[in-house]
Amino acid sequence: MDVAVVGSVALDTVETPWGKAEECLGGAATYFSFAASLYARVGMIGVIGEDFPPEHVALLRRRGVDVEGLEQVPGGRTFRWTGRYHRDVNQRDTLDTQLNVFETFRPQLPETARKAPFLFLANIHPALQLDVLNQSEASFVGLDTMDLWIRTTSDLLRSVLERVHVLIINDAEARLLTGEESLIKAARAVCELGPQTVIIKKGEHGCVLVQEDEIFLLPAYPLENVVDPTGAGDSFAGGFMGFLARKGIVDFPTLCHGAAYGTVTASFTCEAFGPARLVEIGIQDIERRYQQLRAMTQL
Amino acid sequence: MDVAVVGSVALDTVETPWGKAEECLGGAATYFSFAASLYARVGMIGVIGEDFPPEHVALLRRRGVDVEGLEQVPGGRTFRWTGRYHRDVNQRDTLDTQLNVFETFRPQLPETARKAPFLFLANIHPALQLDVLNQSEASFVGLDTMDLWIRTTSDLLRSVLERVHVLIINDAEARLLTGEESLIKAARAVCELGPQTVIIKKGEHGCVLVQEDEIFLLPAYPLENVVDPTGAGDSFAGGFMGFLARKGIVDFPTLCHGAAYGTVTASFTCEAFGPARLVEIGIQDIERRYQQLRAMTQL
Repeated sequence: MDVAVVGSVALDTVETPWGKAEECLGGAATYFSFAASLYARVGMIGVIGEDFPPEHVALLRRRGVDVEGLEQVPGGRTFRWTGRYHRDVNQRDTLDTQLNVFETFRPQLPETARKAPFLFLANIHPALQLDVLNQSEASFVGLDTMDLWIRTTSDLLRSVLERVHVLIINDAEARLLTGEESLIKAARAVCELGPQTVIIKKGEHGCVLVQEDEIFLLPAYPLENVVDPTGAGDSFAGGFMGFLARKGIVDFPTLCHGAAYGTVTASFTCEAFGPARLVEIGIQDIERRYQQLRAMTQL
Repeated sequence: MDVAVVGSVALDTVETPWGKAEECLGGAATYFSFAASLYARVGMIGVIGEDFPPEHVALLRRRGVDVEGLEQVPGGRTFRWTGRYHRDVNQRDTLDTQLNVFETFRPQLPETARKAPFLFLANIHPALQLDVLNQSEASFVGLDTMDLWIRTTSDLLRSVLERVHVLIINDAEARLLTGEESLIKAARAVCELGPQTVIIKKGEHGCVLVQEDEIFLLPAYPLENVVDPTGAGDSFAGGFMGFLARKGIVDFPTLCHGAAYGTVTASFTCEAFGPARLVEIGIQDIERRYQQLRAMTQL
């Protein structure tokens, strides 16, 4: 296994101005795994209930995802999320969250996941992220978090930040975490907290990577039709970490290339409800869009 | 004269969370002219009142701007704009607008301005833009407009669009003009209306250029401290058109380079109230930031 990911596995109900999908396969670890599996061998650590459709597990296996760390709780009910997107897809409302088995999730890394050189801590309680760090032998760790943990568990989150190599968060979270309005200043302030590198995601506006004095500005791959952006951020992280794991290099130019592969991977996710589009593509589809993105951004 | 610009000349009062400036030199034609004058010989067509401080005209002259077309109305009062920016500088409120002499402005192009090969129609009533087009012999015309004209004078605006080569508008205006949420779709819809090329500006998120099947994505030059973004869009247009006029080439790669020079030029505008920073820089300052932007965006 090259990359291990710890995070949510969910059944999502999503409404957009263009349609609705009920209880489709979702969760950060799911999107991350499908995305990363395009580049490297990925193992997924998460929890599901007894109600979780077996065909979803079969789909993950078919994409080569190692599901040994996917714990199924007998009699338990899977985490559910219901949300609605607006015409401006950067805006979404969470209509309902049922944590169910996710509420008492205590991640246990199987032996192969402990030894994976790349680890991604998707958005879960920082105390669990710390516990995972203590189990892992990874030499390169990526981290996501959310406004809730920034607001309520700041000290724990800072302990996690001291031990990770790259933080991948969105612009609002970066501003909340650092109190800086300027994203460049916010990124530099994050680096003071531990991570050598920070990636600030700006949805359809792309992202910015900052590492010491280096700045890399990357527009998102432009889509004419966004169907459902759920999971785009996790797909970005999966493409990014998967690319790094495939290369086995983590210098700044490789991180920049990884971010470009991340945005291209995420673009497919947005083209259908759930991971439907992401699971049907291959590396040649990724490569084609990567070359297009390159042509569209090079002076 | 290489580039002529027709647009507002104003005295702006601007408040931001970081300070306030009273009656500083402003207006679209002003910012455009200072910006374009870094690259080419620019002539400005506008109107001012008797109260317009003569040192402002002297400053324009010192930057090499041809002010023959700057009409001064005896006894008239100059256009005033008062606005306030929020901590998120993409948000601004107009607190007061006094059109004064600008209300009855009827642009008359001096002979040299008529013969200028590049023309920029800044944001004024489309009927006036049409009148200017009828006076001009320019072979390459750029256009700006605003939500008011899109809503109230749609037919006239369409007549103007049929006769220009590039439309430079912001994302909200592009969506309003075309009814398309996707910026790529909006850009293509604009091209159906006449312009070969459309540039959609996204403030701190950069811009996108579209021409037939070509797309170019350009992040904005990143600033740690934005003092006052007033005039940034007009400075972008000035840098862009000035660069094209200097090169004398209008193929797609040159338009893309021009947009990069435009964003770099606009970055200086944002660093001080009014055009204070823009007027003190030289082409070597521009070139340095252009090389930095290039390094920050190349894969």
